[in-house]
Amino acid sequence: MGIGKVETGITGLDTMLRGGFPEGRMILITGGPGTGKTIFCSQFLHYGATKGGEKTVYISLDETKNHFVEEMLTFGWDFKELEQGRRFTFINASDVRRIPAQAFQPSQVGQLPVSGKELARARLIDNIFKTFEGGRSIDKFIGDIGAQRVVLDSMSGLTFRFPKAWEKRQVILDIMEALNEIGATCLVTSEAISIGEARQVQPEEYLSQGVIHLQTLGTGERAVRILKMRGTEVDSVPRPYKIGETGIEVYPDQNIYQT
Amino acid sequence: MGIGKVETGITGLDTMLRGGFPEGRMILITGGPGTGKTIFCSQFLHYGATKGGEKTVYISLDETKNHFVEEMLTFGWDFKELEQGRRFTFINASDVRRIPAQAFQPSQVGQLPVSGKELARARLIDNIFKTFEGGRSIDKFIGDIGAQRVVLDSMSGLTFRFPKAWEKRQVILDIMEALNEIGATCLVTSEAISIGEARQVQPEEYLSQGVIHLQTLGTGERAVRILKMRGTEVDSVPRPYKIGETGIEVYPDQNIYQT
Amino acid sequence: MGIGKVETGITGLDTMLRGGFPEGRMILITGGPGTGKTIFCSQFLHYGATKGGEKTVYISLDETKNHFVEEMLTFGWDFKELEQGRRFTFINASDVRRIPAQAFQPSQVGQLPVSGKELARARLIDNIFKTFEGGRSIDKFIGDIGAQRVVLDSMSGLTFRFPKAWEKRQVILDIMEALNEIGATCLVTSEAISIGEARQVQPEEYLSQGVIHLQTLGTGERAVRILKMRGTEVDSVPRPYKIGETGIEVYPDQNIYQT
Amino acid sequence: MGIGKVETGITGLDTMLRGGFPEGRMILITGGPGTGKTIFCSQFLHYGATKGGEKTVYISLDETKNHFVEEMLTFGWDFKELEQGRRFTFINASDVRRIPAQAFQPSQVGQLPVSGKELARARLIDNIFKTFEGGRSIDKFIGDIGAQRVVLDSMSGLTFRFPKAWEKRQVILDIMEALNEIGATCLVTSEAISIGEARQVQPEEYLSQGVIHLQTLGTGERAVRILKMRGTEVDSVPRPYKIGETGIEVYPDQNIYQT
Amino acid sequence: MGIGKVETGITGLDTMLRGGFPEGRMILITGGPGTGKTIFCSQFLHYGATKGGEKTVYISLDETKNHFVEEMLTFGWDFKELEQGRRFTFINASDVRRIPAQAFQPSQVGQLPVSGKELARARLIDNIFKTFEGGRSIDKFIGDIGAQRVVLDSMSGLTFRFPKAWEKRQVILDIMEALNEIGATCLVTSEAISIGEARQVQPEEYLSQGVIHLQTLGTGERAVRILKMRGTEVDSVPRPYKIGETGIEVYPDQNIYQT
Amino acid sequence: MGIGKVETGITGLDTMLRGGFPEGRMILITGGPGTGKTIFCSQFLHYGATKGGEKTVYISLDETKNHFVEEMLTFGWDFKELEQGRRFTFINASDVRRIPAQAFQPSQVGQLPVSGKELARARLIDNIFKTFEGGRSIDKFIGDIGAQRVVLDSMSGLTFRFPKAWEKRQVILDIMEALNEIGATCLVTSEAISIGEARQVQPEEYLSQGVIHLQTLGTGERAVRILKMRGTEVDSVPRPYKIGETGIEVYPDQNIYQT
Repeated sequence: MGIGKVETGITGLDTMLRGGFPEGRMILITGGPGTGKTIFCSQFLHYGATKGGEKTVYISLDETKNHFVEEMLTFGWDFKELEQGRRFTFINASDVRRIPAQAFQPSQVGQLPVSGKELARARLIDNIFKTFEGGRSIDKFIGDIGAQRVVLDSMSGLTFRFPKAWEKRQVILDIMEALNEIGATCLVTSEAISIGEARQVQPEEYLSQGVIHLQTLGTGERAVRILKMRGTEVDSVPRPYKIGETGIEVYPDQNIYQT
Repeated sequence: MGIGKVETGITGLDTMLRGGFPEGRMILITGGPGTGKTIFCSQFLHYGATKGGEKTVYISLDETKNHFVEEMLTFGWDFKELEQGRRFTFINASDVRRIPAQAFQPSQVGQLPVSGKELARARLIDNIFKTFEGGRSIDKFIGDIGAQRVVLDSMSGLTFRFPKAWEKRQVILDIMEALNEIGATCLVTSEAISIGEARQVQPEEYLSQGVIHLQTLGTGERAVRILKMRGTEVDSVPRPYKIGETGIEVYPDQNIYQT
Repeated sequence: MGIGKVETGITGLDTMLRGGFPEGRMILITGGPGTGKTIFCSQFLHYGATKGGEKTVYISLDETKNHFVEEMLTFGWDFKELEQGRRFTFINASDVRRIPAQAFQPSQVGQLPVSGKELARARLIDNIFKTFEGGRSIDKFIGDIGAQRVVLDSMSGLTFRFPKAWEKRQVILDIMEALNEIGATCLVTSEAISIGEARQVQPEEYLSQGVIHLQTLGTGERAVRILKMRGTEVDSVPRPYKIGETGIEVYPDQNIYQT
Repeated sequence: MGIGKVETGITGLDTMLRGGFPEGRMILITGGPGTGKTIFCSQFLHYGATKGGEKTVYISLDETKNHFVEEMLTFGWDFKELEQGRRFTFINASDVRRIPAQAFQPSQVGQLPVSGKELARARLIDNIFKTFEGGRSIDKFIGDIGAQRVVLDSMSGLTFRFPKAWEKRQVILDIMEALNEIGATCLVTSEAISIGEARQVQPEEYLSQGVIHLQTLGTGERAVRILKMRGTEVDSVPRPYKIGETGIEVYPDQNIYQT
Repeated sequence: MGIGKVETGITGLDTMLRGGFPEGRMILITGGPGTGKTIFCSQFLHYGATKGGEKTVYISLDETKNHFVEEMLTFGWDFKELEQGRRFTFINASDVRRIPAQAFQPSQVGQLPVSGKELARARLIDNIFKTFEGGRSIDKFIGDIGAQRVVLDSMSGLTFRFPKAWEKRQVILDIMEALNEIGATCLVTSEAISIGEARQVQPEEYLSQGVIHLQTLGTGERAVRILKMRGTEVDSVPRPYKIGETGIEVYPDQNIYQT
Repeated sequence: MGIGKVETGITGLDTMLRGGFPEGRMILITGGPGTGKTIFCSQFLHYGATKGGEKTVYISLDETKNHFVEEMLTFGWDFKELEQGRRFTFINASDVRRIPAQAFQPSQVGQLPVSGKELARARLIDNIFKTFEGGRSIDKFIGDIGAQRVVLDSMSGLTFRFPKAWEKRQVILDIMEALNEIGATCLVTSEAISIGEARQVQPEEYLSQGVIHLQTLGTGERAVRILKMRGTEVDSVPRPYKIGETGIEVYPDQNIYQT
């Protein structure tokens, strides 16, 4: 029980998590389109920045800053203000999606000599982010500002360039290692490829230290489920949640499936 | 609450949307064959052009102008008249489907140097549309006429030339970026590949700011569902709709699945 | 409601179609083996030729003329007689299935310069049919005889040579464009690849202006469903049909699924 | 009703077929392992040879003559005797399965000039069979002996060498054309690839003039279904059958699915 | 009824088989992991060796001799003793799994001249086994000792090196032909690839003369089903079985599915 | 019954196993994300080290030592202390995941000459581990310390680099052979690729001497099932389990599926 807990800021979820996310770990938020992955992550950041005065970072692959700020205001979360108060940083990494093909060649990623040092340098994510931050890598940048909560939305925006399963897994490992070294509690979103009972498991679910699954059922009802959470006992039963005027609310005492 | 709303013109749908589509965003209309995607979009355009006197544009990949005008007249919508009143423009982009293979080579799309400016120019959609508009790109053209409602029907007519998943995603990003810069509220249709409960999610559903799903059930009944809508609270329950003599009508107080 | 209607000749179906097929459009008849696609199309031709004295054409990819004539006689339809009266033409295009591989090379199909005129000439179907009609293309031939009803049975017999999805879609577009220019009301059959509730949608369903789905259920019962019909309101509920001594009969007042 | 009927010799099946198979056509017998495809075909041959004194031929891809004769004796069918009476010929074509790869090259199959004559000569099946019959092709051989009933068991033993879907379809066409020219009523067996309700349709089902589907249900019960039969009205309801001491028996008045 | 029967030694199974396996044929034992395929085969061998004093051979691809002997002792079957009494031979063929890639080249398997003799020599299995038996092929070896019962466990351990479906089928044919020439009654195990109602059929099920399917249901219950058995009437209903202290016991009078 | 048993340390599981795991064998622990595979294995090691004073080894592919120790402390298992008492060794093999592509070339793995000795040396796993242990292979290392319980977590972290099915199987064989030679009772975890009733079987399930399947159901309940266990009779019924404050607890008298 030596692992600290980080309050999520999402009503009812901390009950399911027996206090919150394990501190300093990387948690995957996975789900179909429109399940509220971005809202989930923003609520986590906003809570930390306002209640705890923490430094927070949102790395965006798919949204512009303007759209993000505007949309989160509809929940009453003013990220512009937090940014001015130096408690929030928005990193627009969407250009990564247009990186030319050469950057993804094996010469830079997989065919390096094997000593420990060189392996460290081989991290793709590191290389990519460097390109846009003029010599300073994103993880170094985040370390410099001392961020305690970091969101990467979405990992799929990075991994889609790697169609081969083994390359994708390698990239996911690179992303996770880079984020683990930061020391912050990190949420990473991931797009579900198939939807339904007999779904395919995606490799990032195995490689993450925790997995939260958001789901919209055929009836329009929503269910959150903690698929995995290393280092803490949790409630593994799927519970209903709603996206309302003040964000996501989880009902940890209610059931989706009747018994 | 900072995002304006655009009335859809589809009876009952604005109730589900709490007022209408978020202004200036790109909404995906997805569904199987015969679910009324084209009728949905035309009704949206016709409403804006007649009720609000707005400028509207329909970019067609699969239909001729004659067929389109003739079919919409069956709902009492006279697009010929709107065109003459300069409130409607029909862009026949179906030749894009026959663009020769060279135009799709990586030299033009993915292997450019990485500075911001050049990335902008690399947009495929831009290039393609230029070919047919003699030097003036479609997005520039739409901007010039000050369109407030734009429909692209269908995106699948553009993306089918890119069989590899990562290329397809790149092209979808290009299309969306081009449309976002126009400033108009845009509807883009997309063909569902598989049908049923355990369906595959298509990448455009994640990349769009909103997703409306139209469905014909095994019984012949029809159901509309708002899968996703960034920047506004919505009704996520699937609701019945009908295609009648005056277009699509949604019944926001009725249920498809009995409780 | 400016679109004319063409009576199908299939008892009960015109009720579902609110009068008949939209005139001059291309309708896809899709279904599993033994669902009666060929009977459906022949009944449509026979009705036009006998009741309306129309010119009709049957383009066959899989059947010989002898087999066709013999089989249709079992329903009391004498196509030999119609042929002698110049109201029916049988085009045996089955040799297309044996066209050598070179004819399918990109040099002839996809890599042409992009001006409108050359695009028109690039139509594969045109080229193919020319090969067998000594310089005169099939669509020109059909135009010359002034056909009002045309059947192509089956499109799958043409498209199977193109295993790549994007090529297949290109060919389907070529076929449809060629048929649309004829001006006749055209039925094109298509073989369903998978059967069942969670089926794959085939691209021709999106590209056709109408889709009729014929189905034999597990119990041996048969159901017809209008999946799509541009330009006319229709009954989208699946209805039972039978293949009897005088052809196909649809029961537009009965249900397949009990309510 | 100008098409003659051929009695099947399978008790009860002729009732479903309204008299028998259409004369001179090619019927596909498809089903999973152990559903009795070989017994079905042998019973058809044995009936013709004994009741009608017809000439019959069995082309075997997977079984030796010894095994075949021995197994059919368990049903009381003495094919040795029929062979001695010149009413039965066993052609062991199993060596076709070991034909070297060169024989399957496009130079012999698909890249021939397109005139009608040469197309005819391009038939693969013809070429293959010639190899083993010293200059005389199998179809010519069958024509010479004047066979009225021919079985090819199984087509899958020929087509498995062609993994590409379009090649497989080409080969199936070749097989069917060769058999159609013989003039005999032909049964061809085919191995079902997938089993269950949502099955994949195999191309040979579309290309055959009739399809009989044999199935063993999860309970061990057996069901026969006429999926397709050109040129005759049939009972499309699945009916139970048994494999007993005297072969296959169909119960045309019983149902598999209760109503 | 000229085919002799071989008692299986598995209580209750002979009732389903109407006496036993057809003599001298090759029977496939297929099933998921842990369904008892190896126990089934060992029980068959042990019964023959102890009750009938027959010569038996176990060709192992995945297990060492020590593990095999030790595990079978838990059922009270002493194969060490049988070996000393020259009624049992264990052939460890597991090295076949490590055969270098060259041995699998087409030059040795598929591209040989086509005369009958050379075809015979082309048998891969023959070649492979020769490598390890110093000039004497396994089938010759088995013939020399006059084995009446032979087990090959598992075929999947041989065929996995051939990822292409048509190569795999060729190899299965080679294995079967080699075993058929031995004259012994042979059991060959095969790993099921998919599990459930809508399963894929594997090619070896069609090529074998008999198929026994072992299955563990979701409840932990076990069911045996005779999918196919050439040359004898059988009970095709799935029946329960148990793996107990003395091996496998089948209950031929009980049902899995209630009626 | 000559095979010794090893107590698992997991309450209730030994009842299902009739005493424990068969000694010296390799057992696969497979399941979806968050089913507790790592907890299962750690509990097995901790029990052996504390109750029996055994030497134990944990080979980690995906977790750092710090994370592992910290997480297991939440169950009250102090692996730091065990390490200091020389009863536990943590081997961080995660760098294996970054091995450059050349190491996986056929020249090192599959194209070696075939004599027994060289086959032994060809073992990939051996080679890989050597790279990181400076000349001493991991299996030799484990042998030297006399480990009685060994965990490899997870095999998927090794095999993902081999996308081709036959290569993956070869690697799994190499891993198993290396572990079998150690003489210890080994647990190897494996990530389930698909989840649900109609799942794909993974090759490691066939190649392992035992398979334990851990599953989280849709309701959040958990079920453990012994799919396979060579050399001992077991309870094959799925039984519920919980992950509580002191690790995994199995309820061998309760049912998941009601009867």
